[in-house]
Amino acid sequence: MTLSNLTEDKTLNLNNASKEQLQQWQTALTEQYAQIKAKNLNLDLTRGKPSAEQLSLSDGLDGMLNGNYTTESGVDTRNYGGLEGIKEAREMGADILKAPVSNVYAGGNSSLTLMYQMAFIAYHFGLNGEQSAWKHEEKVTFLCPVPGYDRHFSVCEHLGINMVTVPMTSNGPDMDAVEAAIKSDSSIKGMWCVPKYSNPTGVVYCDHTVERIAKLGNIAGDNFRVFWDNAYAIHDLSDNPVVLGNIFEHCETAGTQDSVIQFASTSKVTHAGAGVAFLAASDSNLAHYKKAISFMTIGPDKTNQLRHVNFFNAVDSLHNHMKKHAAIIKPRFATVLSHLEKAFSDNDLGEWESADGGYFISFDTRAGLAKKVVALAGDAGVKLTPAGATFPYGNDPQDTNIRIAPTVPTQAQVDEAMDVFVTCVKLASVEQALAS
Amino acid sequence: MTLSNLTEDKTLNLNNASKEQLQQWQTALTEQYAQIKAKNLNLDLTRGKPSAEQLSLSDGLDGMLNGNYTTESGVDTRNYGGLEGIKEAREMGADILKAPVSNVYAGGNSSLTLMYQMAFIAYHFGLNGEQSAWKHEEKVTFLCPVPGYDRHFSVCEHLGINMVTVPMTSNGPDMDAVEAAIKSDSSIKGMWCVPKYSNPTGVVYCDHTVERIAKLGNIAGDNFRVFWDNAYAIHDLSDNPVVLGNIFEHCETAGTQDSVIQFASTSKVTHAGAGVAFLAASDSNLAHYKKAISFMTIGPDKTNQLRHVNFFNAVDSLHNHMKKHAAIIKPRFATVLSHLEKAFSDNDLGEWESADGGYFISFDTRAGLAKKVVALAGDAGVKLTPAGATFPYGNDPQDTNIRIAPTVPTQAQVDEAMDVFVTCVKLASVEQALAS
Repeated sequence: MTLSNLTEDKTLNLNNASKEQLQQWQTALTEQYAQIKAKNLNLDLTRGKPSAEQLSLSDGLDGMLNGNYTTESGVDTRNYGGLEGIKEAREMGADILKAPVSNVYAGGNSSLTLMYQMAFIAYHFGLNGEQSAWKHEEKVTFLCPVPGYDRHFSVCEHLGINMVTVPMTSNGPDMDAVEAAIKSDSSIKGMWCVPKYSNPTGVVYCDHTVERIAKLGNIAGDNFRVFWDNAYAIHDLSDNPVVLGNIFEHCETAGTQDSVIQFASTSKVTHAGAGVAFLAASDSNLAHYKKAISFMTIGPDKTNQLRHVNFFNAVDSLHNHMKKHAAIIKPRFATVLSHLEKAFSDNDLGEWESADGGYFISFDTRAGLAKKVVALAGDAGVKLTPAGATFPYGNDPQDTNIRIAPTVPTQAQVDEAMDVFVTCVKLASVEQALAS
Repeated sequence: MTLSNLTEDKTLNLNNASKEQLQQWQTALTEQYAQIKAKNLNLDLTRGKPSAEQLSLSDGLDGMLNGNYTTESGVDTRNYGGLEGIKEAREMGADILKAPVSNVYAGGNSSLTLMYQMAFIAYHFGLNGEQSAWKHEEKVTFLCPVPGYDRHFSVCEHLGINMVTVPMTSNGPDMDAVEAAIKSDSSIKGMWCVPKYSNPTGVVYCDHTVERIAKLGNIAGDNFRVFWDNAYAIHDLSDNPVVLGNIFEHCETAGTQDSVIQFASTSKVTHAGAGVAFLAASDSNLAHYKKAISFMTIGPDKTNQLRHVNFFNAVDSLHNHMKKHAAIIKPRFATVLSHLEKAFSDNDLGEWESADGGYFISFDTRAGLAKKVVALAGDAGVKLTPAGATFPYGNDPQDTNIRIAPTVPTQAQVDEAMDVFVTCVKLASVEQALAS
């Protein structure tokens, strides 16, 4: 019997295994791990960023203006002015976020900046007059569905906003927990959401969840704001993607327009860090936002906005462009999933969602093993996002969650890295079972 | 004797004029004003922004990358990362600000944003550890040389920073007043400076002034920061421009490196609102700044930075490019000055500096007339910046200062607008003399 047979052909049912069986597995896996380590790999599954191949899809951007910097509506994008972005870019944002163009702002290159600004403005200046500023509260808390996006949590941390976690389910945040928390804790003034292909679980919020989130404004009070980071709004891998419920419309129905602020960007559509960021908000939220940023800037880079508008008019429709992205990264996602299925579908060593879009696959080990697995993989030359990063303050209380980002490496590299990953999960799990 | 002769050929010596003489002048000027008004002009001397001709000098920017988005040092500008900007852009900033490249940050499209961020960070997070944050002070005050730039004042206003004015002289801020204020008021934590072609007076700080500013850190304490907005660092109109003293070196000599933060941008070099902004600061200030902005952004638009670097390498040297700007706007400045000289050199109706660069000419009326002149000009179809805008809270206590911005209109338009302007100054002055 080969080493491989020992671990791959037999279900790793740790719960019913004898000590001898566990020791056999440990021996085999330790040997397998040593062989992997000897390869001196240097692979990286950490960064949720586009691969060079994906970036090249948009290389036509530079030069798109062809000497004409003036918009159809007659705005010279080369000069100052136009705090809210050019109309044509705002239309693109409206299309992505499914909100009326009059409620959409088109900004600079970073939706994280828009989120930080919005939180900072809500905190210090108020989104409904000075008296609404969160700084007047004794304590300000955001609900954070976990696992979630570390950059959201660090915005809260920097601004001194407290964080309370709620669990993610396969339909979105656990809404019973969300509603209960809001009812029992009046310091809750906000909530982070990545509603489509959630970072990192890949879940798309179901329509009922979207509807319940739209209604939160009615139980949470006037100064409550959901930060709806629709970063992966158009980042589908499937040909028949799930359609996300329209939060803007649900809010109108519920009369809670001010309670949700939407964000998106072209960072993972064209060039990351050189694109256009968008926000969609109620008339009142938008007016307060614009008033505050008028102290901070003369306006966004309108030439780059026009470049993007021209590109999607002349070269490639947004829809078609995203299909090209999918064609590049779908095999990488499939490789991750096939490794996980092969290794763990018949045992209880791990759990994951099958993402149909976005940038991540989230994997939960048995309790107490995430850090160990990340360390083992790192020692074997496969870099993973630090365990805990998907939780506020970097603290995953169960130590289970690992975020896998497969877009940057080639499919062959993902394949090799996932070989290492599953071996590390198996080894850590067997050793834990032996020690208990 | 024509109306024109009446007012132009005879010195408007209001102090020694008889009542009859004043009345004659009033009649003639009122008639002149009515004739001007009948022209239904629509001219604008308000905005310190580049003209379309100037903007066109940089139209080659779009397309400069020619499909190659990678820097010489191997950075793919299309992807995330590089919080401090690409090395080549930082070198450009170092060249403009005359500071070591290791102390230079290259950012997005707005130096106003960098200034706001820096003030906000100093206020809430501290530029030398949390305990250094200005929010811990009972009161925070900035010294504001006046007349000055309204956007500087509005940053203070938004952040709740108190403002105290000091007069501008033809050598820069009145340094006796600055030092006395700092010695007597411990709440002073900052000072705004536009050291070269000051907005709006056009004055270049003399070397002794630069040296004294560098030494302020020694009397003002550790948390004092000069915001050195060198917006017009390379915006010379003369072939032999005055050289501004090097504040970075003066600070090193004085041991006050942390006390000055420098800013600049290409807004009035390439495309306003679509350029690259720079800051230069001590190692410690820069480290604290970068740490704070890492919560707010993934980094600046590096593709646009590379576009700028390539443009000045391949198309035009920065020096030569600025000469082309000067060729366009110098005649407009000369037109303003020749009108002022012709109308006011032999009387005391107004004072101004002869700017050798920058974007403005600042004019002081007799006390109490600025608002009146702006209103008269406005009624005659010549838009001027609101009187008072060059003072904190829009309050010019003497009501004398008017900022003239001649870059956007053509030379012929400037000529026509200045005809109106001098007539309005004369008319307002004569009417004031008559009423007193």
